[in-house]
Amino acid sequence: MTITPSSILKDVEKIRKNAPLVHNITNYVVMNTTANALLAIGASPVMAHALPEVEDMAGIAGALVINIGTLSDPWIKAMFKAAKRAKQRQIPIIIDPVGVGATQYRTRTARELIQASAPSIIRGNGSEIMALCEQDQTTKGVDSTSASDQAIDSARSLAREFDCVVCVTGEIDYIVSQGAMIQVKNGHAMMPRVTGLGCTATALCGAFAAINQNFDKAAAHAMAVMGIAGEMAGQNAPGPGSFQVNFIDSLYQLSEIHIKELFNA
Amino acid sequence: MTITPSSILKDVEKIRKNAPLVHNITNYVVMNTTANALLAIGASPVMAHALPEVEDMAGIAGALVINIGTLSDPWIKAMFKAAKRAKQRQIPIIIDPVGVGATQYRTRTARELIQASAPSIIRGNGSEIMALCEQDQTTKGVDSTSASDQAIDSARSLAREFDCVVCVTGEIDYIVSQGAMIQVKNGHAMMPRVTGLGCTATALCGAFAAINQNFDKAAAHAMAVMGIAGEMAGQNAPGPGSFQVNFIDSLYQLSEIHIKELFNA
Amino acid sequence: MTITPSSILKDVEKIRKNAPLVHNITNYVVMNTTANALLAIGASPVMAHALPEVEDMAGIAGALVINIGTLSDPWIKAMFKAAKRAKQRQIPIIIDPVGVGATQYRTRTARELIQASAPSIIRGNGSEIMALCEQDQTTKGVDSTSASDQAIDSARSLAREFDCVVCVTGEIDYIVSQGAMIQVKNGHAMMPRVTGLGCTATALCGAFAAINQNFDKAAAHAMAVMGIAGEMAGQNAPGPGSFQVNFIDSLYQLSEIHIKELFNA
Repeated sequence: MTITPSSILKDVEKIRKNAPLVHNITNYVVMNTTANALLAIGASPVMAHALPEVEDMAGIAGALVINIGTLSDPWIKAMFKAAKRAKQRQIPIIIDPVGVGATQYRTRTARELIQASAPSIIRGNGSEIMALCEQDQTTKGVDSTSASDQAIDSARSLAREFDCVVCVTGEIDYIVSQGAMIQVKNGHAMMPRVTGLGCTATALCGAFAAINQNFDKAAAHAMAVMGIAGEMAGQNAPGPGSFQVNFIDSLYQLSEIHIKELFNA
Repeated sequence: MTITPSSILKDVEKIRKNAPLVHNITNYVVMNTTANALLAIGASPVMAHALPEVEDMAGIAGALVINIGTLSDPWIKAMFKAAKRAKQRQIPIIIDPVGVGATQYRTRTARELIQASAPSIIRGNGSEIMALCEQDQTTKGVDSTSASDQAIDSARSLAREFDCVVCVTGEIDYIVSQGAMIQVKNGHAMMPRVTGLGCTATALCGAFAAINQNFDKAAAHAMAVMGIAGEMAGQNAPGPGSFQVNFIDSLYQLSEIHIKELFNA
Repeated sequence: MTITPSSILKDVEKIRKNAPLVHNITNYVVMNTTANALLAIGASPVMAHALPEVEDMAGIAGALVINIGTLSDPWIKAMFKAAKRAKQRQIPIIIDPVGVGATQYRTRTARELIQASAPSIIRGNGSEIMALCEQDQTTKGVDSTSASDQAIDSARSLAREFDCVVCVTGEIDYIVSQGAMIQVKNGHAMMPRVTGLGCTATALCGAFAAINQNFDKAAAHAMAVMGIAGEMAGQNAPGPGSFQVNFIDSLYQLSEIHIKELFNA
């Protein structure tokens, strides 16, 4: 399976035309960032986490993104409830197991959520994907300490166990499913220095999965767009503050020319 | 009723001189954005939502802003409690019914809050104002899908029902009360692509209402300042990332010259 | 006790080399800002507040930062639990008593937290430090209304009562402990117009205390870095929006030359 500049562009244009509603149950740190990224690429974000409304919200969304970055018991209940409704409606569910391995609470919650919801896509960094698989690995906080290529076997194992696409991000992004693997080599060295860009990658998976039912390609397109926008942002960023501003601008400006010039698989 | 560049300027100067304390019970996505906008225009924001302290905080504030963007049961309780205290003290209450119509939970909560608190100003986009009025309308997430002018009748009906100012924002902003309507035509096409600018408009209503008891004018001044700062921001913004940065800078820089040159009613 | 450009630089380099994990239980408004500031200076932030995981997270962190900016009962419970574990492990605890004096709830919580956790550093503005000391002072919201020098006596009294370093920030920063006081005169007039820079100062105290057990110097180094980055940011900032972006860039770029040229004690 491969993706190409024209397959990326086609999905970007579809997002801009359809403005799919992406329901996010995500962490406090990145809510603003991921909402702005979704708006910049052309999707329509909504953040809603209250038990009495998550079913209604998942009931009108085109995709559900669950991110456990600042999880707590009431939010976990809402995640399960929203996931149940999304599963019934057969809309894609994307899970970001932020910080899995750092605490037992995260590891257990992430695995239970994945088991219950049968997500279309799991996206994490190398440490998270390995911790999710091995259940006994500890990570250092929520930032990656393992290269993405060390996690390919874990990703394959998770993809098989849960019959889903597993997207491991790092210097190279690996989009792994049963019997297929796509690589995306775009990106910029400053990206790990901006909080929430991993969470943004997951949110963009939601936007792409909402308009493309081939979830391997949807995830790969999202990673390519992340990486290309990152390279555009890095061209004129003296530090991670301006990088973040440029990154949102780049998602908004992203055109055929940028994709053709910069895409690197 | 009309507003003029000098009536706008007078209120901006009053905010900068008095730095009114605006108590916000608002959503997670926009807290940082609206706090920065309030600081940039010269007001003093405070975010506090805990049941044991909202009365004390509303007890020292010049205005109370309630925004249901990421509502949940404990926050709703605090909203009612804060509103009760604000009402006793006769300080202005401003309500932003974010996403009303998207879920029954939001629609019911917004109407109950409005009924209990008798707000001075309700601010929403066209879809929200119509959903609030009709109670049976469904919106697509939290972004506007209806033009503001379609909501004028709903705004009039709400203004009459709750004896308050209803501010419908969109390409043209309509500030509607019983027997009066002010239009503000300022703004920029990139504003809907930045999350939280609607919530920022509501927060600024709080700052202006804290220093001007004519709530029609206070709301209209706030909308004019939003739109003018938006036009200033858009002059040099390649995308919504830099737009947001410029917007905060513009609120800070806003002077008589900008207002006189750009105000458009 | 004094700090010098080379003592500042040495700690900055140590943070960049070791990337200490800083566990933050902080407020919703600033989470994104402080996470980005910690990443920009080279530390590794994690935000986690759930009762079932705060012990595990404090168990792997190099410092614990507790900020009561948007406190509520469940979060307070987690603050105490995390502090207990951090105290057992003898990692530094830094407390930011945001808005103390504005409500009894904040004043009581801050004092109880300090009593229970025996923090290494308390950081606040002048009003907060005085309110924390006197217990009867009321502040106007969460922004400083008293100059930092008015709070020196209160800081001394708190430092004695709780055997800790008290860092009072303002135009001049005073880092006070039993028998010592360091002054830092760096900073920029636009800093109070950006929300969360006080909270960022506290978060940076966490990063510096994680790699320097002399907490007087750790706090003073953090304040010097804040002020120097602020001066760098202000050199080309037409308003607080671009100031905030530049500030993050400056933390990232900060080098020996900047520190030597700008440090002002």
